[in-house]
Amino acid sequence: MHFELTKEYLDNLNAAVESNVEAKVLELIEGLHPVDVAEILKEQSLEEAKAFYFHLPEELGADALVELDEDVRERFLNEISSKDIAGKIINQLDSDDAADVIGELSGKKQDEVISHIQDIDKASHIIDLLHYHEDSAGGLMAKELVKVNIDWDIATCIKEIRKQSEEVENMFTVYVVDDMGILRGRISLKNLILAKESKKVKDIYTAELISVKVDTDNEEVAQIMEKYDLVVIPVVDEIGRLLGRITIDDVVDVMREEAEKDYQMASGISENVESSDSAWILTRARLPWLLVGLLGGIMSSKIIGTYESQIQIHPETAFFIPLIAAMGGNVGVQSSALVVQGIANNSLGLKKGIWTQLLKEINVGLINGIVCSGIIFLFNFFFSDNFSLAITVSTALMSVIFFAGIFGAIVPLLLNKYKIDPALATGPFITTTNDIFGTFLYFYIGHLMYGVA
Amino acid sequence: MHFELTKEYLDNLNAAVESNVEAKVLELIEGLHPVDVAEILKEQSLEEAKAFYFHLPEELGADALVELDEDVRERFLNEISSKDIAGKIINQLDSDDAADVIGELSGKKQDEVISHIQDIDKASHIIDLLHYHEDSAGGLMAKELVKVNIDWDIATCIKEIRKQSEEVENMFTVYVVDDMGILRGRISLKNLILAKESKKVKDIYTAELISVKVDTDNEEVAQIMEKYDLVVIPVVDEIGRLLGRITIDDVVDVMREEAEKDYQMASGISENVESSDSAWILTRARLPWLLVGLLGGIMSSKIIGTYESQIQIHPETAFFIPLIAAMGGNVGVQSSALVVQGIANNSLGLKKGIWTQLLKEINVGLINGIVCSGIIFLFNFFFSDNFSLAITVSTALMSVIFFAGIFGAIVPLLLNKYKIDPALATGPFITTTNDIFGTFLYFYIGHLMYGVA
Repeated sequence: MHFELTKEYLDNLNAAVESNVEAKVLELIEGLHPVDVAEILKEQSLEEAKAFYFHLPEELGADALVELDEDVRERFLNEISSKDIAGKIINQLDSDDAADVIGELSGKKQDEVISHIQDIDKASHIIDLLHYHEDSAGGLMAKELVKVNIDWDIATCIKEIRKQSEEVENMFTVYVVDDMGILRGRISLKNLILAKESKKVKDIYTAELISVKVDTDNEEVAQIMEKYDLVVIPVVDEIGRLLGRITIDDVVDVMREEAEKDYQMASGISENVESSDSAWILTRARLPWLLVGLLGGIMSSKIIGTYESQIQIHPETAFFIPLIAAMGGNVGVQSSALVVQGIANNSLGLKKGIWTQLLKEINVGLINGIVCSGIIFLFNFFFSDNFSLAITVSTALMSVIFFAGIFGAIVPLLLNKYKIDPALATGPFITTTNDIFGTFLYFYIGHLMYGVA
Repeated sequence: MHFELTKEYLDNLNAAVESNVEAKVLELIEGLHPVDVAEILKEQSLEEAKAFYFHLPEELGADALVELDEDVRERFLNEISSKDIAGKIINQLDSDDAADVIGELSGKKQDEVISHIQDIDKASHIIDLLHYHEDSAGGLMAKELVKVNIDWDIATCIKEIRKQSEEVENMFTVYVVDDMGILRGRISLKNLILAKESKKVKDIYTAELISVKVDTDNEEVAQIMEKYDLVVIPVVDEIGRLLGRITIDDVVDVMREEAEKDYQMASGISENVESSDSAWILTRARLPWLLVGLLGGIMSSKIIGTYESQIQIHPETAFFIPLIAAMGGNVGVQSSALVVQGIANNSLGLKKGIWTQLLKEINVGLINGIVCSGIIFLFNFFFSDNFSLAITVSTALMSVIFFAGIFGAIVPLLLNKYKIDPALATGPFITTTNDIFGTFLYFYIGHLMYGVA
């Protein structure tokens, strides 16, 4: 039902391409979706990919190119002349994809490719789109859409839609604008099909319509489309003129990237990388957080160092350092992750005040703290037969679970209040801080119990 | 442009509802989207919500209800008679939403509500849908769709579409079936608008069409729709008969939940919870992983315990326990997160063999290890003036970074190979294992250096 790329298929295809048996290649790629073709191109060497590409029907090839990862596409386009890029690729794409592809080229090659575009409308669309920031609604939108004037009658309207829809792949909705080009509403195709031809657009259109401004951040666009279950959203300028539209498929990518970014931050990875990236890129993304952890470890060592004589007299206190540090880290990550997620999907509600969240964290901390420190008390009491140790470890654990949870909830809430990405607070930052704090608390309580400094 | 719920607005609304000023309520809710209404209902007390609900136009109220969280909706529906649920709510909903709402009711109330549904077609649609597992394509799909017979001409086709589209809110696409009801392809509305009325469906329809089987897992449905940028996907039975269709808005929720689940697992939260859930539910989701961490801490204490005399003679070795444990945990979380994400978004490619990924992890581990252990060596060498300690800590750190990274990459790859959710490997499990392993390695190397056991 859908294509699964296998080693065997790839070998067959490469053999057919190499021996230049057009019929065999076309047979193998029959019914493939651009995404499938992109998957093949990704697995081929540059030579193989180039040879294969020139067997592809132009539209399929161009659409597949859009689906490639940026670095793969870049290497590929370097091998193709500006004239072919304009004529065989850009020519087949919608303005948003075309602008994305051209935007990745070097400045000189951009100008060359644009000068080779035959369709003046398309060229001007692309030049418009290249001006918008890629992380804004303008960077996501396509210029192709179907719009009608609010004063037209249905017959004119349908004639116009027929004309306009030839260059729009998925129509979704028909926008209604006034003489100034200002967006006034929409007509669903359903209403259009059901309406009498003598009626006017203004009689049957829907005025309510959610739109975004062209400079809206793309994550906000994604949130609005997700919240209101939209498949397509119109983009307007400052005075409400219709500029383009964004479809859900482009926004799904934004959502995916956003979710991955938060997950990676929580895991201590500072750049948006993939496991298929090179070892060097991966190292660069991972080393910074390791250095934070290293610094935290050094600070912990300084704290423990001040209790050197206590460790010499009561070495058993050292046994539970990993337990205290690990539990502080775990609790902090849990509570910060919940708050970060609550902020991200807006589920904290109106009561998202710091105090409500804190009160809850206090309750959770109490229960978890009592259970865990109870267990460790019984363990030490019965197995090590050392009452002081049992008291020290369980008291410290109780305090660490309690404070680490509160700390983990407070930091993202505060960051969010000051418009800093709360996801920064999850992962290594919280873990490291709680490690240091937990170690200090543990030895300080031990000091109070044993009276050694 | 879109609604923002404020405390002030809510107070105004509640006052208007309480004093029963219909006109004022309607003025306040003018232009609101069901999602906005759901947000209001969530913030109100049960009493307020009930009073407000009966001011709402039926369709808006029913659609808002669908947008509520399951627990809020359940409490709400308990207050409403089965007859009103059937007549005022179910009657306004598409079959998929209606089945979801009914599916949450108790067995007895389900039967009552279904018996009160006037529209026999709708009732039978809902009963059909209730049979499917909620995590399958069948559980996601709606029965409402527009379909035409492959043998019809365009005129009949358009007449039929007009009729059918009255009960389908967003048409998206027109499906083509044969006399057996087997899905044969689709006609885009665009092609339909452009075609001559005398042509036949079979002349202009597109045979290529990606569909899913009714028992396909909903995460797989989400993957397919995301991969192929689909807005709607048809659902078929074993022999290919068209049963229903799934739209992207329902799938976006699946994707969101999936991403949140992985993120929560990585943060040591075992159930799908939200920060707005009760302290008790949050504790239940968090305690299991804390107990795993506790067990790990106890095991670490046992390992350190065997080196008691070494700690007494060289207490400085205890200072770096948190550093070694934390770094092992951090590295493990990083490498496992990357692999889990690579598996989830299928970006490891054909070469997703364990060996390629391992080789890369070895390289990353070497660079990170050399940098971090180099820094800690210099720190200890110059500031503590203790050569043995400097060697012990830096060697142990190098080994821990190296092995923790490999371990973090291998475990999710292995889990995935044996069809276990690799996300299980991120977070506390990896952290805890690497804590224990790191502690052991550190003291063992210390033992080799100092010769004390």
